[in-house]
Amino acid sequence: MKHQSLQDELLKLAESQAKSFLPKDAKDDVYFLPHKPWEFGQAKGIKEHHEPHGPMERAAFQTAQFLRGLLDNIAGYEPVPVHAGKKIQKDVAQAVSCVTTAQAARAQHVRSMWKGEPDNGWCRALLLESDNERVHLLTALKITHANRLVRMGIITLQSVVSPFSFIAYVMCPKYCHRLYEYLQEESIKIYTQCIEDIEEGSMDLWKNQVAPTIAKKYWHLKDDATVEDVLKAIRADEDKHRCTHHMLANAKYVVNLDPTKLPQ
Amino acid sequence: MKHQSLQDELLKLAESQAKSFLPKDAKDDVYFLPHKPWEFGQAKGIKEHHEPHGPMERAAFQTAQFLRGLLDNIAGYEPVPVHAGKKIQKDVAQAVSCVTTAQAARAQHVRSMWKGEPDNGWCRALLLESDNERVHLLTALKITHANRLVRMGIITLQSVVSPFSFIAYVMCPKYCHRLYEYLQEESIKIYTQCIEDIEEGSMDLWKNQVAPTIAKKYWHLKDDATVEDVLKAIRADEDKHRCTHHMLANAKYVVNLDPTKLPQ
Ligand SMILES: [Fe+2]
Ligand SMILES: [Fe+2]
Ligand SMILES: [Fe+2]
Ligand SMILES: [Fe+2]
Repeated sequence: MKHQSLQDELLKLAESQAKSFLPKDAKDDVYFLPHKPWEFGQAKGIKEHHEPHGPMERAAFQTAQFLRGLLDNIAGYEPVPVHAGKKIQKDVAQAVSCVTTAQAARAQHVRSMWKGEPDNGWCRALLLESDNERVHLLTALKITHANRLVRMGIITLQSVVSPFSFIAYVMCPKYCHRLYEYLQEESIKIYTQCIEDIEEGSMDLWKNQVAPTIAKKYWHLKDDATVEDVLKAIRADEDKHRCTHHMLANAKYVVNLDPTKLPQ
Repeated sequence: MKHQSLQDELLKLAESQAKSFLPKDAKDDVYFLPHKPWEFGQAKGIKEHHEPHGPMERAAFQTAQFLRGLLDNIAGYEPVPVHAGKKIQKDVAQAVSCVTTAQAARAQHVRSMWKGEPDNGWCRALLLESDNERVHLLTALKITHANRLVRMGIITLQSVVSPFSFIAYVMCPKYCHRLYEYLQEESIKIYTQCIEDIEEGSMDLWKNQVAPTIAKKYWHLKDDATVEDVLKAIRADEDKHRCTHHMLANAKYVVNLDPTKLPQ
């Protein structure tokens, strides 16, 4: 009965929303599951760096450095001015981390089928992180006013990265978690650099640009929040991801992950 | 600071869990995000059937009937006794619905990139449904004591179905939602038939078989819960999915979905 009336309510809601012509801005009026508001004192940089031990961790560290260098090269490539470079860097980093985490979740699912065991919460934790990265990506697209060409490029990049990151995770999940930990470190560095540039006045555009509605809703920002505030919120998220992957890379056996107790 | 101490706590937790030799049963001691306990009076069957209107809906209805017939044929195929047939039916249905919903979420993500707009909560709603189906699948594997061959079959089936369901959803999301609505109806019928068989005494094994730990934890069942209780909980979930897809198939425009207000 209770179930039935809920359904009626939802259908009424859906129909009324469908019938009314939504104003143009309403497209930004998105709904999310709650996200904790950040205090901006948090996550000012990398507080703890895990020194790579052994060949696998060194390889993960070097891969992260190589990818960071590659990204810097693309972003700083001569004909593109530095400002646009930073934009590209943000979009690309978010696009990649969104699919790598989703594919890690997929691999954990396949592993759980293969072993005939539950996944101990890893799958869901990774999916929720991927969803978080997706909001980063959407926000980055809004902030950088990405045109259709950039968005098509991101779809293509994600389609290409997906299968490789799936295979990599199936073959060596530990290496992947360590790599993702180091990549999050690099993201944090990029954001910190970006925020410093804004504070020093060399990127005035982002100091004054108002945060997109999607970001204000998601991170519970004030109405007059700027892009700088958004970058700080994203950096705090990245630090959370770094913690998670650090923990998953360290877990020596199948450890139960209580998603409610993961770094929030 | 707060963030840092949380990380330390998590690492300690992970290490202590990794060091202790887990008892064999501990593998079932999984963690999930909360799932509402069902009252078993709910979802006794299909309370509301949506009559197909127009060619697309009729096609969706016929596809659902065809797939149901196919499944019945596989499950009831002569050399396999009826009881084993029911087992196969459960596993296959869950395996397929797990990936179709995940691929729908993926397609919504690509759509959102393509349009440069947020996905209005559809992506997350579908991912959470897919996660729910994954627990169904894991439970079905436990109940039917699936061996490695069956589990490999499921991995293969999911790998094959995934790309097709992705393409289908990109081409016609409305058709897919209507099809999934009808497939949920068929699932509900299968579970209802199964529960009636148990109540009439023709499937005694499942009347007395104790529910697996994973199911007891997830649906907050009593310690002496049986497979029958699990089937009722799953049926209630399927009815919830039917509501969701009914709503999504009816939504004429981009409708904002508040995941906290979806059928729970
Ligand atoms: Fe991110
Ligand atoms: Fe991240
Ligand atoms: Fe299911
Ligand atoms: Fe379902």
